[in-house]
Amino acid sequence: MKQAIGVIDSGIGGLTVAKEIMRQLPNEHIYYVGDTARCPYGPRPQEEVKGFTWEMTSFLMEWNIKMLVIACNTATAVVLDEIQSELPIPVIGVISPGARAALKVTKNNRIGVLGTEGTIKSEAYVRELIAINMESKVTQLVCPKFVPIVESFQYNSDIAKKIVKETLTPMKKTDIDTLILGCTHYPLLGPLIEKEMGPQVQVISSGEETASEVSAILHYKKTLNIESAPPEHRFFTTGSKELFGKIASDWLGISDLSIQTASIEKGVMKI
Amino acid sequence: MKQAIGVIDSGIGGLTVAKEIMRQLPNEHIYYVGDTARCPYGPRPQEEVKGFTWEMTSFLMEWNIKMLVIACNTATAVVLDEIQSELPIPVIGVISPGARAALKVTKNNRIGVLGTEGTIKSEAYVRELIAINMESKVTQLVCPKFVPIVESFQYNSDIAKKIVKETLTPMKKTDIDTLILGCTHYPLLGPLIEKEMGPQVQVISSGEETASEVSAILHYKKTLNIESAPPEHRFFTTGSKELFGKIASDWLGISDLSIQTASIEKGVMKI
Repeated sequence: MKQAIGVIDSGIGGLTVAKEIMRQLPNEHIYYVGDTARCPYGPRPQEEVKGFTWEMTSFLMEWNIKMLVIACNTATAVVLDEIQSELPIPVIGVISPGARAALKVTKNNRIGVLGTEGTIKSEAYVRELIAINMESKVTQLVCPKFVPIVESFQYNSDIAKKIVKETLTPMKKTDIDTLILGCTHYPLLGPLIEKEMGPQVQVISSGEETASEVSAILHYKKTLNIESAPPEHRFFTTGSKELFGKIASDWLGISDLSIQTASIEKGVMKI
Repeated sequence: MKQAIGVIDSGIGGLTVAKEIMRQLPNEHIYYVGDTARCPYGPRPQEEVKGFTWEMTSFLMEWNIKMLVIACNTATAVVLDEIQSELPIPVIGVISPGARAALKVTKNNRIGVLGTEGTIKSEAYVRELIAINMESKVTQLVCPKFVPIVESFQYNSDIAKKIVKETLTPMKKTDIDTLILGCTHYPLLGPLIEKEMGPQVQVISSGEETASEVSAILHYKKTLNIESAPPEHRFFTTGSKELFGKIASDWLGISDLSIQTASIEKGVMKI
């Protein structure tokens, strides 16, 4: 199977998921779209997030992908079910894997969720956690400043440290033992968040579990790539190719990435 | 969805997988068949393993299960593909999840596999590991004495310690950093195996990853149980109900298990 796995995100956050897919499935081709020009999605109205996510989806479907990963929590919360029911290929989001990963490690069933306004308001994590384990007690926290720091390549800066510390103050007062990074941008702040929460809290990023789900479903559908040629990844961004390339190379540890600019005209994404 | 997840094994080994499913999906009903009367499957001819596995499968299909887990590596190696292609419900084995779990943790791509004669001869793990990552170097080892110690409830004994030590000698001479317990009975010897291999080797049991796969597929197919009534598990054994009950209660930490004896007449399993 030469078809690629499609990964879409509001910006560069989905790279944390793409990186895990590359690690767990090193033979697979990945086609990634980051809608950096219109990032963040978190504070946008649902209808707008829905429209943007469909634009990326339709764009990747033209490339004949075999599976779609909506690597953006905000988009997953709003439009996963709709895209799942309309596409002929498997479509997965990041909320259910993140919830499952948290339930695997929690001992006291007290789980925290950090997310964008859209994700937290949707209560998608709360529903998912309780559907799987009714005993779950969930504390949510909106972190509006996290995505902008990451998208502007400041995730290692002193200002990032300060913002993480301030934002997490209310979460530190709870008795959670597990904290879900409910936005795929947040793993780039992972070390700061882990340090701030301390060793008694397990920090969960959905990337690893999402990649396991990709792997499980491709295996189940017998569509894993078993060719021996090295994979060809492609990256598309609606924003600055330079900034996207800088962050992608830094995060993925790959220097020669194929990055193309995609533009949107009358609701259609193209290169 | 009131339907149960079916789990089958040559004996009590599959309980290590059932336990993980119960932990990760506490709402789900599990119907378990252990063919303890004819355990071990490892040294048996393929055709026999195939026939026995189909008997358990047909028995559980009468109970209207929604998914089947072949929680026996020997049976997975021999008959997973056939059962998958003939059943209308999702069917998964334990080899692919075990392989994937190992590939997630290995750093040097040197992976060891312990298994029964049937599993090791089939080279199913080698194929699976290399299909996902061509760089994998795999060392296999047959451990014929492990299943009998476990099935006879001697897994905490001094004799178990001695057998584990002797059996693992050749594996200790390799440079593996990850060791797959390629038989679902072996996690009951897990602490002994981990101690013998030392802290530089990560020991992988496929239970956790198999349960994640069950969860991912049920979620993907939208057939997770979302009722709030407590789950009802049922256990069937072809052998001694008392011995099965003793091991199952010890391993699962549940005292009031519903266990029934199943018998086989002319190739048909019934209670």
